[in-house]
Amino acid sequence: MKIIDIRETAIPLNSTLRNAVFDFSQMKTSIVAVITDVIIEGKPVVGYAFNSTGRYACGAQMRMRFIPRILSADPDSLIDKERNNFDPGKILSVMMQGEKPGGHSDRSVGIGTIEVAIWDAIAKIEEKPAFRSIEERYNPGGAKPKMFVYVGGGWYAPGKGTPELLEEMQGYLDMGYTQLKMKVGGASISEDMKRLEAVLNLVDHDGWNLAVDANCGLSRQGAFDYAKALEPYKLRWYEEPTDPLDFQLMSEIADIYHAPLATGENLFSVQDVQNLIRFGGLRPNHDVLQIDPPQSYGFGSVTQTIKMLNTHGWTANSIMPHGGNQMSLHIAAGLGMLLCESYPNTFGMFSGFADDAEVIDGYIELDETMPGIGFEGQSELFTIMSNLSNE
Amino acid sequence: MKIIDIRETAIPLNSTLRNAVFDFSQMKTSIVAVITDVIIEGKPVVGYAFNSTGRYACGAQMRMRFIPRILSADPDSLIDKERNNFDPGKILSVMMQGEKPGGHSDRSVGIGTIEVAIWDAIAKIEEKPAFRSIEERYNPGGAKPKMFVYVGGGWYAPGKGTPELLEEMQGYLDMGYTQLKMKVGGASISEDMKRLEAVLNLVDHDGWNLAVDANCGLSRQGAFDYAKALEPYKLRWYEEPTDPLDFQLMSEIADIYHAPLATGENLFSVQDVQNLIRFGGLRPNHDVLQIDPPQSYGFGSVTQTIKMLNTHGWTANSIMPHGGNQMSLHIAAGLGMLLCESYPNTFGMFSGFADDAEVIDGYIELDETMPGIGFEGQSELFTIMSNLSNE
Repeated sequence: MKIIDIRETAIPLNSTLRNAVFDFSQMKTSIVAVITDVIIEGKPVVGYAFNSTGRYACGAQMRMRFIPRILSADPDSLIDKERNNFDPGKILSVMMQGEKPGGHSDRSVGIGTIEVAIWDAIAKIEEKPAFRSIEERYNPGGAKPKMFVYVGGGWYAPGKGTPELLEEMQGYLDMGYTQLKMKVGGASISEDMKRLEAVLNLVDHDGWNLAVDANCGLSRQGAFDYAKALEPYKLRWYEEPTDPLDFQLMSEIADIYHAPLATGENLFSVQDVQNLIRFGGLRPNHDVLQIDPPQSYGFGSVTQTIKMLNTHGWTANSIMPHGGNQMSLHIAAGLGMLLCESYPNTFGMFSGFADDAEVIDGYIELDETMPGIGFEGQSELFTIMSNLSNE
Repeated sequence: MKIIDIRETAIPLNSTLRNAVFDFSQMKTSIVAVITDVIIEGKPVVGYAFNSTGRYACGAQMRMRFIPRILSADPDSLIDKERNNFDPGKILSVMMQGEKPGGHSDRSVGIGTIEVAIWDAIAKIEEKPAFRSIEERYNPGGAKPKMFVYVGGGWYAPGKGTPELLEEMQGYLDMGYTQLKMKVGGASISEDMKRLEAVLNLVDHDGWNLAVDANCGLSRQGAFDYAKALEPYKLRWYEEPTDPLDFQLMSEIADIYHAPLATGENLFSVQDVQNLIRFGGLRPNHDVLQIDPPQSYGFGSVTQTIKMLNTHGWTANSIMPHGGNQMSLHIAAGLGMLLCESYPNTFGMFSGFADDAEVIDGYIELDETMPGIGFEGQSELFTIMSNLSNE
């Protein structure tokens, strides 16, 4: 059993959206295919993944460093002999050969994307949906096959006023979602509060159904001003007010903001998350940790993060994986996380779940019959993936 | 005045060395040429830099993201009008367009290398050595044109015993250096202490003339064990015992280890260094901060780090730039840092200073007559640089 080839192609995100900090118009995303010599129903098993959203394609690093390390390793050294399958931990170690400590984001996106594609292959070899392969190894009996999903939306756009914002948000409710998130910090605080109150009207005035996201765009003072303005609404969470690495400022915000805070999508290693937990003043079973699995070394690293979190009194039930896609849906369901993101239509084919996925009262039921992560159920994305592998 | 082109080429480091964590044999380094339309003595001014050592070449990121942003910007928007020269801060801001907060090392190496090459051009336009251009802007009257340099050596190599180690170290003393550093953690603690005592004999038994570097390779327990074993020798410093981002563990080590500690080469942003200062338990005017300028957004970012450090009671006199090369020599001299590294012969042409540089009693005198960073004085390296620019 061995990996025959690993291929990458970079596809434009084709998004015109912007948040408080930057726009996505020049961004490309890496799609990866891991081709194995395992044959099921007459065809080789291929694992797929993409590098989520918000970080650039990284095919050069893959081709220069991570892919040759895997392909030149002894194939037997990459096998989980007990399960007769690929061993994602051993493959991760091989990808890390020749890498210096620290400086994670230079490699964690490329390595994580390959690692997640390997999980897709592993689950296909087991002929199970990926969340069941994950559950079996790390969370026996604890999967959540019915997963709560909320929508990250409420984007700024040129010429977009409150009516257009409400139209966007109503659209999500019409799709079956019950919890929404909107951007703040891209307008004045008074304008943002008007936008917020308008959306709160839409979600029955219940702050629990609405989160806000500042995308790290606020100054120190701005972060406190928003905290004070947002506090009365008891929102679901207040996300990434400032620099994601300024753990002390986060703890100062947590001192005055009592509803949940959320952060983590811009941390790329277990050690970074541990620093957040140690120094960021966040509260277990209250605040929300948002990790992007393919951007931070993959699924295996998420399980290491949870192990570390457990020693600090946190559980998987405080984690929401960043990135609304099949990968985050499966890791969330497999490890029994709090909830999952969704970005319907936002990032084109890199948004959303299987084409036939239905959201009912905010929940998605995972497909127990489709092996792997389930990209095969996303026709537009899977066309590119299968062109890449020729399978 | 404008930048006409920015070119990159990746050159193998050609090093067979290893430290406690990894070997350098597969590593390439990015060389950058920034070609301007400023003509001096009939030729266009070209700025050069390379991405130091220990991190991989990153030409793909430069070509996909940073270089097109500079070349497509309005040239006037990149100028320091007061000085009639390029403005490195404005060029840095342009390179950061479309980049998400956090996740620094994915871009800080590529951006920092281009930024340092721009400083080379700036100083050439001013017809001054780079350290004088830096001094003038950030440290008036505070440059150290005579800079203390120590040698980072004492490497492990297959078959290398104590006699060969002593031969290596004696070679540095013969070159005029007085302070040395050796690797620890790649052998057993008892073997390492024997190596250490042998080298201490060579430097007149004075611990102040010897530092040790564990390259993040020790376990938690190993870090404490080495701290206890090293403490009696009152060494110059004990560098990077463990994970460079485990600030709490560093503070626990600082609690029991009273001679200087050193770290920082694996931090890539001002915010990371601030976290180290806030949470790492390090002691101003005692411990040593080691930042790699071309790997962490360039010279301008170093000045921001020093501004931040000042608010915590630290000064430039606690900093030693990582990387023994002309770039670190000029930023160290310009900002009046504690000392500078040197790696004679270690990383081939990416090691060392001008071919005619002389070390006398541990000091190098910077050349006041050569404009820029002075790569023109390194014949082997400059051959590749000038081939890249065709100038």
